[in-house]
Amino acid sequence: MSLLVIGTLAYDTIETAHDRREDILGGSAVYFALASSCFVPTALVGVVGRDFKQEHIAALEGAGVGLDGLEVAEGETFRWSGRYEPDWNTRHTLETQLNVLEHFDPKLPEAAASSRFVFLANASPQVQARGLEQVSAPDFVMLDTMNLWIDVARAELVDLLGRVDAVVLNDEEARMLTGEDNLWTAAHGVRELGPSLVVLKKGEHGAFLLAEDWRFSVPAFPVEAVVDPTGAGDSFAGGFMGHVAKTGNSDPATLRQAMLYGTAAASCCVEGFSTDQIEGRSMQEIERRHRELLRMITP
Amino acid sequence: MSLLVIGTLAYDTIETAHDRREDILGGSAVYFALASSCFVPTALVGVVGRDFKQEHIAALEGAGVGLDGLEVAEGETFRWSGRYEPDWNTRHTLETQLNVLEHFDPKLPEAAASSRFVFLANASPQVQARGLEQVSAPDFVMLDTMNLWIDVARAELVDLLGRVDAVVLNDEEARMLTGEDNLWTAAHGVRELGPSLVVLKKGEHGAFLLAEDWRFSVPAFPVEAVVDPTGAGDSFAGGFMGHVAKTGNSDPATLRQAMLYGTAAASCCVEGFSTDQIEGRSMQEIERRHRELLRMITP
Repeated sequence: MSLLVIGTLAYDTIETAHDRREDILGGSAVYFALASSCFVPTALVGVVGRDFKQEHIAALEGAGVGLDGLEVAEGETFRWSGRYEPDWNTRHTLETQLNVLEHFDPKLPEAAASSRFVFLANASPQVQARGLEQVSAPDFVMLDTMNLWIDVARAELVDLLGRVDAVVLNDEEARMLTGEDNLWTAAHGVRELGPSLVVLKKGEHGAFLLAEDWRFSVPAFPVEAVVDPTGAGDSFAGGFMGHVAKTGNSDPATLRQAMLYGTAAASCCVEGFSTDQIEGRSMQEIERRHRELLRMITP
Repeated sequence: MSLLVIGTLAYDTIETAHDRREDILGGSAVYFALASSCFVPTALVGVVGRDFKQEHIAALEGAGVGLDGLEVAEGETFRWSGRYEPDWNTRHTLETQLNVLEHFDPKLPEAAASSRFVFLANASPQVQARGLEQVSAPDFVMLDTMNLWIDVARAELVDLLGRVDAVVLNDEEARMLTGEDNLWTAAHGVRELGPSLVVLKKGEHGAFLLAEDWRFSVPAFPVEAVVDPTGAGDSFAGGFMGHVAKTGNSDPATLRQAMLYGTAAASCCVEGFSTDQIEGRSMQEIERRHRELLRMITP
């Protein structure tokens, strides 16, 4: 398999203005892999507890996700619980139980260690670094993170930024990391920390990519009824990296298309709770949305 | 002249986090005409008081704005005063003095009455309707408005929406007018009120256009140092209508390009106080930004 993701698997409890769901499948690596495996088979490295359900293993395997690197540890699966404000823009974390994640030390199977394309999904920079060390000769490595790590593990994160090709952040994270309000200025600031590509996600306002001598901006795919935005960013990354791995290079033309595929994948994700919509979508639906996006942005 | 704008001329007092300027040239028709006259000569219909400075008359005429329809009335020019929060997204109106605007009844010179392209810049729907009645056979009429009129003159505004081809609103106005939070749903709601084209401006997040069977989305032009956002929306409309009038039609291809030209014009406007930057910019600078935008959005 040419694409590898290292990150979390979780059971989430989510409250929105309209609904509440308990212990549903989630986690950064899960959302990523379900989107990316629409493009290419994807190897997942992560940890779950003894309580992780067989149906979820089956769902991941059925989607084309390779689970040779999935560790089943003593204890319970990582749990996260959050609530969204009615405008979707504000998310409150209600509870986090690290459980088996607390002592997670990723071990890559041989096949995964030779992956050409690697996504370090949101996890502690220590776990991300331990994972990356085991990949022998990656062509293209992209990193995600979150405000927590910018806060409590800034030095480790900055160190890691010097060893990846690309980073994907949301607007708040980019501002936190650089202290810059203006998003383009913040993106430039992030680039100065190491990665030659910075992808900035702005939720309903789309995303942009900043490279050394070019940039690309894409609107969000119009979704009229958001059900649950959890995992949208990871699905975006899954569509992005899925296209890059499928194409087999990271040329500007490939990366621009990857931004469109990421946008299409994220739009599927937010239309259902948990992984319902991203699982239910085929590559055909992602291609349909990709074509519609193209029509929307072509002058 | 083929392009006509009916709207306000003002002296603004503006406070930002960094600066404060008193009694500087402003007004919806002024910002619009300075942008649109980069594309085509533009006739302006509006009213000022005896205090309106000769240097501002000269600046408008020098830019190619036709002032045959400018009325100089007894009293003082309309004054507006506002303050921006540091993030630019919140604007507080500190004071409004209608002055000569209170009894303004637009009278179109003969040449203006035969205009093919008309922009009804922000003014009361009554004034906009009185102006529009006098245009004999317009090809394309676009309307702007503001939250105040949605609040206090909703019936007149809705009536007028049934008589224009296009409307340009910001996100807050579209939500107010329709009661819909989701911007695409709101845009659909505005279309149902009459205009076949709805342009929705989202400030730093760009703009989109909704037509019957197509839509087009464009990001904002990246501006690293915003100085004063006053007039950005009117400059956008000026670039948009300027391109439409110059091209002489309202085909989808023209309208898509008009969205890019509007975006380019707005980005010039926000880089200076009052009309400094939009006045100082030539069509050459707008074309340069248009090309850069094209590069930014072309996959």
